[in-house]
Amino acid sequence: MLDNIHIVLVRPTHPGNIGAAARAMKTMCLHQLRLVAPTHYPSAEATARASGADDVLARALVFENLPDAIADCHLVIGTSARTRTLQWPQLAPREAAQWLTQESQTGSVALLFGQERAGLSNEELAYCHYQVNIPANPAYSSLNLAAAVQILAYEILQADVQVSTPLLTPPAPDDTWVSHLEMEQFYTYLEQLLLTIGFLDPNNPKYLMRRIRRWLSRGRLQSMEMNILRGILSALSKNLR
Amino acid sequence: MLDNIHIVLVRPTHPGNIGAAARAMKTMCLHQLRLVAPTHYPSAEATARASGADDVLARALVFENLPDAIADCHLVIGTSARTRTLQWPQLAPREAAQWLTQESQTGSVALLFGQERAGLSNEELAYCHYQVNIPANPAYSSLNLAAAVQILAYEILQADVQVSTPLLTPPAPDDTWVSHLEMEQFYTYLEQLLLTIGFLDPNNPKYLMRRIRRWLSRGRLQSMEMNILRGILSALSKNLR
Repeated sequence: MLDNIHIVLVRPTHPGNIGAAARAMKTMCLHQLRLVAPTHYPSAEATARASGADDVLARALVFENLPDAIADCHLVIGTSARTRTLQWPQLAPREAAQWLTQESQTGSVALLFGQERAGLSNEELAYCHYQVNIPANPAYSSLNLAAAVQILAYEILQADVQVSTPLLTPPAPDDTWVSHLEMEQFYTYLEQLLLTIGFLDPNNPKYLMRRIRRWLSRGRLQSMEMNILRGILSALSKNLR
Repeated sequence: MLDNIHIVLVRPTHPGNIGAAARAMKTMCLHQLRLVAPTHYPSAEATARASGADDVLARALVFENLPDAIADCHLVIGTSARTRTLQWPQLAPREAAQWLTQESQTGSVALLFGQERAGLSNEELAYCHYQVNIPANPAYSSLNLAAAVQILAYEILQADVQVSTPLLTPPAPDDTWVSHLEMEQFYTYLEQLLLTIGFLDPNNPKYLMRRIRRWLSRGRLQSMEMNILRGILSALSKNLR
């Protein structure tokens, strides 16, 4: 359904930015590019900056004016860094991405990017249902056009996938996390070893074993790591007595 | 606290990308840039692409090698698009950003970007606690270097603005995470010890040291835990020879 999402560059002046935007789109599975009255297009510079995304450029549609470019779209969101006298309803990038992906299931939707220097005019913004604002450094909010496309395309793919990566990678297919029982057996072994070498004072154990537990729990142990750990300790203690 | 977050470009080949990365950083309130063995730097092209972010370039630090560049950092996260034989724990951009902002409150942290074509080498990735992967088009995941910086910088600013729940228990008030340099000194010591006791075969090291690195990186080490670990190993090896 991402093919129902149209990225619309309005009056872009630098062909390099068109190419870089195409590349940014394709990295995030977006392929529908529309150009409204580009200053220079087609252009060798655009193709060069598109890198392997020249297919996106090749099927980009060029329009003379914005209304034509969004005629078939039932949801239109315009990016803007500026606030306006008549403020449009504003979405965060994540919200805009969610709306676009959701609404793309029933037809064409558009995300508009204005001219490099000035952004979307008030008239162009008035064609939009909502405005999306990329939070940025108040002292330097000058995002490159392709960089703005990259961030929103990224949020769109995120919204589309919606599967969150697990916090920690699961073990390799040939390995497993050690069980509670194995960990307990290890702690028993370790405690005995530390007593033997006098590192753990039975009359004054303090928090030693609990500190070790907290540390080892934090990253957990996989079977092969447990083997390594036990192997090292056993090799080292071979020389005891 | 965002000034404790260091963006580290490892062996960047195109000066234009360095400039564009500086611009991407500054739009998201990041100002600390470190460069490891850049092919061409300083460079007029870098300054041109930095646009109004030339102050970030001006105070960028250049290092000859990666270990020096991250010596003072207690959390190191490496970006990578590739999966590896020995897979490192993987974070989503949003998670990585949360960790970086959270951990930057107590000292320096680093986010690494590898060379444009090849990305981070396995050796470079082994210096990282975690890997962060930007979800992308499986058929075309070729993000421009500055585009990757832009996305992660954006997530960092987002994370900084929000109040995030801590993902891992922060160290006790009286303790701190060990720095990269301390960990490296420990690995050097451990490797020597394992060679001495014949546990590590110099002619057939396999993945042993990298497995140990991956395991210890996953949960990280606090100063007191490092003392315990070193204490145990030193007590055990007292009886050697």
